[in-house]
Amino acid sequence: MPLILVTNDDGVTSEGIHALADAMKPLGDVVVVAPLHEASAIGHALTLRRPLRIETLRENVHAVDGTPTDCVNLACAIIMKRIPDLVVSGINKGWNLGDDITYSGTVSGALEGALLGTPGIGVSLKRMPIYDFGPSAAAAAKVAQAVLTHGLPARTFININVPPGVPKGLRVTAQAKRNHVTQIDARTDPRGNAYYWIEEALDEYHPDSGRTDYEAVKEGYGSVTPLRPDMTAYEVLAPLVEHLK
Amino acid sequence: MPLILVTNDDGVTSEGIHALADAMKPLGDVVVVAPLHEASAIGHALTLRRPLRIETLRENVHAVDGTPTDCVNLACAIIMKRIPDLVVSGINKGWNLGDDITYSGTVSGALEGALLGTPGIGVSLKRMPIYDFGPSAAAAAKVAQAVLTHGLPARTFININVPPGVPKGLRVTAQAKRNHVTQIDARTDPRGNAYYWIEEALDEYHPDSGRTDYEAVKEGYGSVTPLRPDMTAYEVLAPLVEHLK
Repeated sequence: MPLILVTNDDGVTSEGIHALADAMKPLGDVVVVAPLHEASAIGHALTLRRPLRIETLRENVHAVDGTPTDCVNLACAIIMKRIPDLVVSGINKGWNLGDDITYSGTVSGALEGALLGTPGIGVSLKRMPIYDFGPSAAAAAKVAQAVLTHGLPARTFININVPPGVPKGLRVTAQAKRNHVTQIDARTDPRGNAYYWIEEALDEYHPDSGRTDYEAVKEGYGSVTPLRPDMTAYEVLAPLVEHLK
Repeated sequence: MPLILVTNDDGVTSEGIHALADAMKPLGDVVVVAPLHEASAIGHALTLRRPLRIETLRENVHAVDGTPTDCVNLACAIIMKRIPDLVVSGINKGWNLGDDITYSGTVSGALEGALLGTPGIGVSLKRMPIYDFGPSAAAAAKVAQAVLTHGLPARTFININVPPGVPKGLRVTAQAKRNHVTQIDARTDPRGNAYYWIEEALDEYHPDSGRTDYEAVKEGYGSVTPLRPDMTAYEVLAPLVEHLK
C-alpha cells in the first residue's frame, strides 16, 4: 500500500483535513501530521528560530506546533522515517487561485512534498459559511489515484480548487495572473494608538490568461493545476542581459 | 525622483538593509520599512490573525511587527500612501538560490512588489562569519538603475545573489533545480520530552540545469535571475488531461 501523508494549514482540528484523510484511506496507508494551530497565509515558511514539538493525538494523527512545511519535514524525518509516496494538503477553507498560491500554507505543503522528491497535491474549497467537503474530497481522491498510478515528473505538484456544490467536472488549468490592491483596515486602540489589519485583497484577475484555475472554478469546474517551483521568467533573460550591459 | 521602498527579512536593525538603502539613495527617494524582528525563512507569509503596528524609528525608517510581505503592504497603503517605483529587499545574510526561494522572506518582499504592480529586487549574500555588503550593494544599484531605466514586464521581479569577495561580473541566470533532504536535530529537554530543530538542508543542486543562479555564484559571478509568480508546469498540462480521463 502506498504511504500517504495528509497535512493542511487550517490546523489538525479542522474538519477539512479529516474529510481528506478519509478520502485517501482507500488508496493507501494514511498518516495525518498537521499544525496544532491555524497557520493560514503562512506561505512556505519554515520555523528556524525555535524548536518544534510533536503531539500524537491518536494513532496516525499528529500535531506539530509549526507551519505546514514544518509538518511535512517532521513527518518524513521523525514520524514516518521515510518520504511518503504522496503528500496531500487541505481541504482548505478558502480557494488558493492564481498568483496568490505563494501565500498559501496549503499549497506550500504540497510544494514541500515535491521538493523532498514525492508528488504533492493541495486541495481548496471556496470560503463559505457552511462547508460540504464531499465533492472536494472526491476530486482529491480522483487526482491522487491518477498520480499514484501514473506518477508526476520530478519537482511537480498539483493545486486543486473546487467550486461550491457538485463540480461539472475537473479541468486541467494554468495558474491565473493576478495583481492585487492592498486593503488595510486602520483602527485606533483604547490607548489612542494606531493598529492595522490586513484585509482580503481585491479580486482582480487578468481575463487574458486563457484556461486558468480562476476561470475553471468561476465556470463551475474543479480546477487541477500542475505546478513546479521554477519561477524563472525565461522570456526576460535576453532583454535583461541587454539592459545590464 | 523615483520612490524606492527598501525592506528585508533580517529585520530593521540588520546592517544589510542600511547598506542597501544607502546604495539606493543616488537613484531615488528611499523609505525603509522592515520587520521589527528577524523573519528569516518566513516565505511569503501574511499576518492575518492579529493586527500589526508601525514604529517610526527615524525619518524614512519604519519597523512593522510582522513579515516582509506585511511591511510592503503597510508601506504602500499607510506609510507612503502609494505604490513605489521599485521595491528592493535585502541585503540578506545568506543566499537564496534555486528552488529554495519560496522559503525566503527576502525574495518574497520583491515578489510582493511585483504582485502590487511595481518591480521588485531581492539581494542576498553568502552566509559568512563577517559580511562585506559593498559588492552586493553595488550589484543591487546597477540592477536597480537598469530596472528604473528600462522597466520590467508586469508581475516580474529579480533575485540577485552575490558571491563572497568582488564578483567577476553579473550573470543573468535561471533558477536552479533542487531537491533537499530534511535534516532534523532531535533533542531531549530537561523534563525528558523530545523537541526538534530544523537544520539547514543538504546542498543537492541538479547539475543538469544549465546557466543557473547556483552555478553563477559558485563560479564567482553575481547572479541576476528574473522571476514571475507563475509556477504552472505547462509541459504537464497535456499528460494530466490524459491521466484524469
